Amino acid sequence: MPEIRLMRRVLASNDALAAAQRKQLDRHGVLGINIMSGPGAGKTSLVERTAEALGRKYRIQVIEGDIQGDLDARRVAAKGVPCIQINTQGACHLDAMMLARAFDGLDLSKLDLLLIENVGNLVCPAEFALPAHVNITLVSTPEGSDKPTKYPLMFTRSDLVIISKTDLLPYVSFDISQVRDAIRKLKPEMPVVELSARTGQGLDQWVSWLEEKLSRRS
Amino acid sequence: MPEIRLMRRVLASNDALAAAQRKQLDRHGVLGINIMSGPGAGKTSLVERTAEALGRKYRIQVIEGDIQGDLDARRVAAKGVPCIQINTQGACHLDAMMLARAFDGLDLSKLDLLLIENVGNLVCPAEFALPAHVNITLVSTPEGSDKPTKYPLMFTRSDLVIISKTDLLPYVSFDISQVRDAIRKLKPEMPVVELSARTGQGLDQWVSWLEEKLSRRS
Repeated sequence: MPEIRLMRRVLASNDALAAAQRKQLDRHGVLGINIMSGPGAGKTSLVERTAEALGRKYRIQVIEGDIQGDLDARRVAAKGVPCIQINTQGACHLDAMMLARAFDGLDLSKLDLLLIENVGNLVCPAEFALPAHVNITLVSTPEGSDKPTKYPLMFTRSDLVIISKTDLLPYVSFDISQVRDAIRKLKPEMPVVELSARTGQGLDQWVSWLEEKLSRRS
Repeated sequence: MPEIRLMRRVLASNDALAAAQRKQLDRHGVLGINIMSGPGAGKTSLVERTAEALGRKYRIQVIEGDIQGDLDARRVAAKGVPCIQINTQGACHLDAMMLARAFDGLDLSKLDLLLIENVGNLVCPAEFALPAHVNITLVSTPEGSDKPTKYPLMFTRSDLVIISKTDLLPYVSFDISQVRDAIRKLKPEMPVVELSARTGQGLDQWVSWLEEKLSRRS
């Protein structure tokens, strides 16, 4: 199976590069966050709300990953936070090599927080480590309660799950306790935050979690 | 770039196998449909509604693609339609080789319509041809208006786009005319159907489109 051997080599070299990049972040006391989800679960809205809540207190840099275009980078830049857009040219996930090119243009000594928004995909991004200390996955209420069960790797590779778009709960079939149970089965200690970027409900919980991580930077 | 050469070989042999499988379907006058979307856009609900609308008139077989589990196959089987579950074991899309194994257990001479539900992913499934005469992509209103622009390959490879969950339009930011314009830019002649599997609104348009395709089977 040459494909499988080749894939293992690709993943191993990606892991090694991501670990080296994480050390670069550590040397400068920068916290790196890899934000993952399916398409349209609210990653960019979360980045926008985070920029509003913490943009004056911390030096934030955002890196946006998309197959093509710069729609998300424009949204983030409009919040006054510097943003680099990576276009994956068809690839279904970011990888450490793409981040290496983005890092070239960054002065890490002038940063506290690096938010990396991955390509919208509940499968592939989970396999590729990035220069991030924590992975977070968003699952939005309209996607349905079965997502942790159907896409387990993304959830087991995460350090926090955000249930997003809780303002839509009255209009969709989404059973929060069922989802929390499914996540607990995959990873018993997983913290779960429920929020709506639209109404702001629950955002304080996310911001507190993030500030606690920021306070413990090496 | 050995990865790229290898990937081209994989795609070429997948295309060849899918074309052979399509001929098998043609010999028996079976219409094959490949249903794609991001996670939770409503593919299974569409299959359920289709089974309800056409299950007495046509002989339908469903093939469900999921990374793991049989949640969707159980939902479909509950509608009285035979269903085979394929577990991709981590792979982010179905491919013709997986379908070949499913075909082994099928008597195509006893079918009119084969509905193949791909893995929930707006990126990778677009690259792998299946034994299908038409590809359809669902984009649900909570996912946001930017999806055709951000995930163009999936839309250009499709023969019909379904805008799903239209019952949520009053509660989300989704501009139907903007989405229709973006789809038209990618593929001017693309038919677009707006529907809600929950309320049933627009389903007749989808069923008419499908019956028109069924009437023109070779």
